Amino acid sequence: MAKSIRLAKRVITESDRLAVELVDRFRKARVFVANLMSSPGSGKTSLLEETARRLGKELRMAVIEGDLATDRDAQRIRRAGIPSYQINTGGGCHLSARQVLDALEQFDLATLDVLFIENVGNLVCPAEFDLGERRRVVLASTPEGDDKPIKYPVAFHKADCVVLNKIDLLAATNFSREAFLGYVRGLNPKIPVLEMSCRTGEGVQGWLDWVRAEREAAAKGAARPPKR
Amino acid sequence: MAKSIRLAKRVITESDRLAVELVDRFRKARVFVANLMSSPGSGKTSLLEETARRLGKELRMAVIEGDLATDRDAQRIRRAGIPSYQINTGGGCHLSARQVLDALEQFDLATLDVLFIENVGNLVCPAEFDLGERRRVVLASTPEGDDKPIKYPVAFHKADCVVLNKIDLLAATNFSREAFLGYVRGLNPKIPVLEMSCRTGEGVQGWLDWVRAEREAAAKGAARPPKR
Repeated sequence: MAKSIRLAKRVITESDRLAVELVDRFRKARVFVANLMSSPGSGKTSLLEETARRLGKELRMAVIEGDLATDRDAQRIRRAGIPSYQINTGGGCHLSARQVLDALEQFDLATLDVLFIENVGNLVCPAEFDLGERRRVVLASTPEGDDKPIKYPVAFHKADCVVLNKIDLLAATNFSREAFLGYVRGLNPKIPVLEMSCRTGEGVQGWLDWVRAEREAAAKGAARPPKR
Repeated sequence: MAKSIRLAKRVITESDRLAVELVDRFRKARVFVANLMSSPGSGKTSLLEETARRLGKELRMAVIEGDLATDRDAQRIRRAGIPSYQINTGGGCHLSARQVLDALEQFDLATLDVLFIENVGNLVCPAEFDLGERRRVVLASTPEGDDKPIKYPVAFHKADCVVLNKIDLLAATNFSREAFLGYVRGLNPKIPVLEMSCRTGEGVQGWLDWVRAEREAAAKGAARPPKR
């Protein structure tokens, strides 16, 4: 029993060490890095497509895509006009700092303003792993129901920004905005919650403004905000 | 390195041994056991609520609920009129055979016709763990997008039944039924795909018929079908 506990501790430390290496590389390159996580199908790739289309002429962006299988999301991002690099995890339920470090071999960080890391679609495992990101973004969508924050509290507690997507479907679901916001604030009192529909474009402007502001801070060499 | 490989092997074997113990207990009790898995918010609990309301007078049912936190789902099931037992996994991303065995201490299997196990909302990790179930049910819902089967292939490959929920939202999304069915059949050619809306009740009858037929097979003491 003691042996397996020691083993687990060593693995966590290695992962943390690599995350610190990533923080350092991102800060030196003055690139804003956001780690996006959510359930499968909440709209991570749709949000990045919209961002590519609407911010692609203004900022130099790239995306690292994490999926169990296929390079569909990387292809979608490329079609929206920005470079993307697909990591297939096989059975792996989250991206690791090691995988992100390896992906960085494929392009020059110094040429970028913003790097998005789209994690594996999963509200559980990705929340436990620091990828060196400046900001962690958790997406939820109205058809999933308003109780997801309290049912997946680690993801929402550790987030720096919540995106509530698919507000165009609000009237067709039983979702309560008040309940959702109450649950989010209970776990993470000051977090921004950006409501939008990536399908209709409504509310996406607030996200673009948030990305611009975060990018400006990163471009000035600001240290990563302390993590929870 | 060799040591950690041996350790992993031993852990898997223990989990498999406990799953075989569960298969044996379920068969002896002649209870039909289904393990439900999906993304967060696809409608597992809603499906079980509908099942409780519409089949609760005909069959003796219970639900084992798996969640990271809260007993909200167990409460919803109880309000729908059948017993439920909540397992909170803490950070755990799936239910284990050990947790199901422990939950069985709380009730008498022999008094049941059907036991549903609602796994943690996650399309990745639960797919790797046998809980001794006769049938494995994977839910998807139209707002998640039609590409989920190929992006989470293990879950759909190992499933015995696919439920496609929220068809009432079909027109409001970009979901293609043909694409979804093609992806499912590519991974799992003969699997039944039951389309429904737990919110409107449309299509739920097909699911109730499927449950009845599976329950009859289990009541006759039929062996568990071979797993992929």
